[in-house]
Amino acid sequence: MAKIEHVSPLAPAGGFPDMPAIEGIRFSAVAAGLKYQGRTDVMLADICAGATVAGVFTKSATRAAPVLDCQDKLGRVDDPKAGFAFLVNAGNANAFTGKHGTEAVNRITSAVGDLLGIPQTHVYSASTGVIGEPLPTDLFTASLDALKSGLSEDRIADAAEAIRTTDTFAKGSSAQITVGGATVSIAGIAKGSGMIEPDMATMLVYIFTDAKISQQVLQASLSRLNETTFNCITVDSDTSTSDTLLMAATGKAEMAKITDLDSEAAAQFCEGLRTVMTDLAHQVVRDGEGASKFVTVQVTGAASDQDAHKVAKSVANSPLVKTAIAGEDPNWGRVVMAVGKSGAEADRDRLSIRFGDLLVAEQGWVSPEYSEAAAADYMKNTNITIRVDLGLSGGSATIWTCDLTHGYISINADYRS
Amino acid sequence: MAKIEHVSPLAPAGGFPDMPAIEGIRFSAVAAGLKYQGRTDVMLADICAGATVAGVFTKSATRAAPVLDCQDKLGRVDDPKAGFAFLVNAGNANAFTGKHGTEAVNRITSAVGDLLGIPQTHVYSASTGVIGEPLPTDLFTASLDALKSGLSEDRIADAAEAIRTTDTFAKGSSAQITVGGATVSIAGIAKGSGMIEPDMATMLVYIFTDAKISQQVLQASLSRLNETTFNCITVDSDTSTSDTLLMAATGKAEMAKITDLDSEAAAQFCEGLRTVMTDLAHQVVRDGEGASKFVTVQVTGAASDQDAHKVAKSVANSPLVKTAIAGEDPNWGRVVMAVGKSGAEADRDRLSIRFGDLLVAEQGWVSPEYSEAAAADYMKNTNITIRVDLGLSGGSATIWTCDLTHGYISINADYRS
Repeated sequence: MAKIEHVSPLAPAGGFPDMPAIEGIRFSAVAAGLKYQGRTDVMLADICAGATVAGVFTKSATRAAPVLDCQDKLGRVDDPKAGFAFLVNAGNANAFTGKHGTEAVNRITSAVGDLLGIPQTHVYSASTGVIGEPLPTDLFTASLDALKSGLSEDRIADAAEAIRTTDTFAKGSSAQITVGGATVSIAGIAKGSGMIEPDMATMLVYIFTDAKISQQVLQASLSRLNETTFNCITVDSDTSTSDTLLMAATGKAEMAKITDLDSEAAAQFCEGLRTVMTDLAHQVVRDGEGASKFVTVQVTGAASDQDAHKVAKSVANSPLVKTAIAGEDPNWGRVVMAVGKSGAEADRDRLSIRFGDLLVAEQGWVSPEYSEAAAADYMKNTNITIRVDLGLSGGSATIWTCDLTHGYISINADYRS
Repeated sequence: MAKIEHVSPLAPAGGFPDMPAIEGIRFSAVAAGLKYQGRTDVMLADICAGATVAGVFTKSATRAAPVLDCQDKLGRVDDPKAGFAFLVNAGNANAFTGKHGTEAVNRITSAVGDLLGIPQTHVYSASTGVIGEPLPTDLFTASLDALKSGLSEDRIADAAEAIRTTDTFAKGSSAQITVGGATVSIAGIAKGSGMIEPDMATMLVYIFTDAKISQQVLQASLSRLNETTFNCITVDSDTSTSDTLLMAATGKAEMAKITDLDSEAAAQFCEGLRTVMTDLAHQVVRDGEGASKFVTVQVTGAASDQDAHKVAKSVANSPLVKTAIAGEDPNWGRVVMAVGKSGAEADRDRLSIRFGDLLVAEQGWVSPEYSEAAAADYMKNTNITIRVDLGLSGGSATIWTCDLTHGYISINADYRS
């Protein structure tokens, strides 16, 4: 793995944020020595009995063993008096490891179940790192006692540190909101830097809340918000085999249980959850491998929201657009190219393009008010917005991405060596 | 534009090949000063009366003005006694230039028609270079006399030189074949280096033959062969606004006219044409911006040929696969990832992966016979073959691509500046 020598220039100022403790959740992290030296690489979240768990996973046809296992377990409550656990390691993805991979998941989730006195089916694991190497389960089991004794409500930052791979900073976000008159806390952590074009989920994201909410409403809220948050980011168009978004709600807040997705309480809860999910999604992009610019692609006027999403993804994934941004070059012709290749309905002569508020092109050609000097100045910003209006109908979408730099090549041309 | 300081290491040995003259075709090239200093940038091919013309073009929704114009003209013979012309410039794409772009095409094709005494509708133009800048048509018209006086049967190499943009070498290929007992020559030239994922065509390709063949059979042959040649290459997944493949058959060979696509003569002709088209397609990849490796991705065992094409494109376009190849890293886990995200039917446990002849993974995991040292040795080759067998059915596809290196970033982060 390429040594990470500096923190992304796009990292949030001030480091890892202060996060509220979530009643009913304890965290721990240990250095099991799976791959890295001198850092933690396994995290455990111990979740109280009565909590509800929801999740969204990669749609990859070559999903990793722990993803398949999580999908099997989602929604099961085999012992109502038992809690749940999330177990995550970095350094080894346990992906494309055949039946050995499945056996490894069974072994470690069983061991954690025994450790905490809960059914194996209540333990959700995830693994991230190199694909195709056997997971050294002995190193896990040797670390279990330390994992258990380290559990504490205030160690979510340690958990976020332990799940990093090429991430240059640990990612966390939280919100405190009022739901039905009660104060509810939401706290989430994420990892992700490369192999980022989530397809139904992101790399690894864990969100916790003390809200009292049914599993059905929690799952529906998470799935719906995922569409406009993690499903709207891309670093390199490569979709991971391990994308996992898991959420646990402990129900410890003093409130009436949310059981209706259309209720006011559900809307209040979703608003807080959207804030946390959007912030975490942005942080993944801000840690995009080699990234030097945070880019927002806003598409409006499309024939449909789906078409707008296609166009925005096409612009955001174009290597030529991304390298132009890296070079601070207002090369709007490449945006035209990316719109053209997207497969969405488009009319060259109705298209308009803006960099930030600068009108660049309209009616099939460069705008008379366009100034190359002003556009070149705009491209020097760290946060760039590319706006495309297709002039056809009301479809819209926003995608977040980063630029493509020498740093991406350096990190990925020698990741394993 | 980044200065091209060296020729691609993947360029064919021996420089531009010897090419047969095609009876009925004359070439010329001049330095019109459209963008570059000290080099030719406009080429003209003068094609005899009675020739047939076929073409394939980009499907981009933001097609350039000359592409739209060519599509309008294809198949028209407004004066059976008049010849045809292909006019191509480098340095300016005349794309996304609104009605001014259309007017520019009309102006230059009219001027060439007058120059050669043929209808404007017999003049096919193409432009390649920067998108969105007005085409300086005065520079064209000022060069017309020189273009005409320079016409010669043996200047195809000069034509190939004149249409380069970021290309580091001029691309040509030819074949002489026997069709129905007669010797038939085929000679083609191409340009293309970046913005390469042709969608129905490639960047710019011009192929000439003295075969006697109907327009319908020529068009059908070209379209069919295009599917397995230019439509099977990718450098950076970005589809040009200007992709154009044009072919002219002069009918000067002493042979019976080919009028049936299913005839033996058509099959003989197509075999020669396939050789030329495949060679030119490979040369475009070999000049891929920053390329240091020529990569063949062969997919077999897919549920359908379409699925195989999806998987092969997904592997060939994955930035993580391409950077691993640049780093000479046998990171087959990234191939698994790319198969998984492709959207094609795949079964992790039936998948096998080979680098060249080395079996890397099968039945859902690394092969027992896999040697990392042998695979690392293999990756040092300049020509790399990645073979994926999906183990499902008989669908297959082959895609050619190159690696993703610092060179690509350097060329494209400052193309316009």
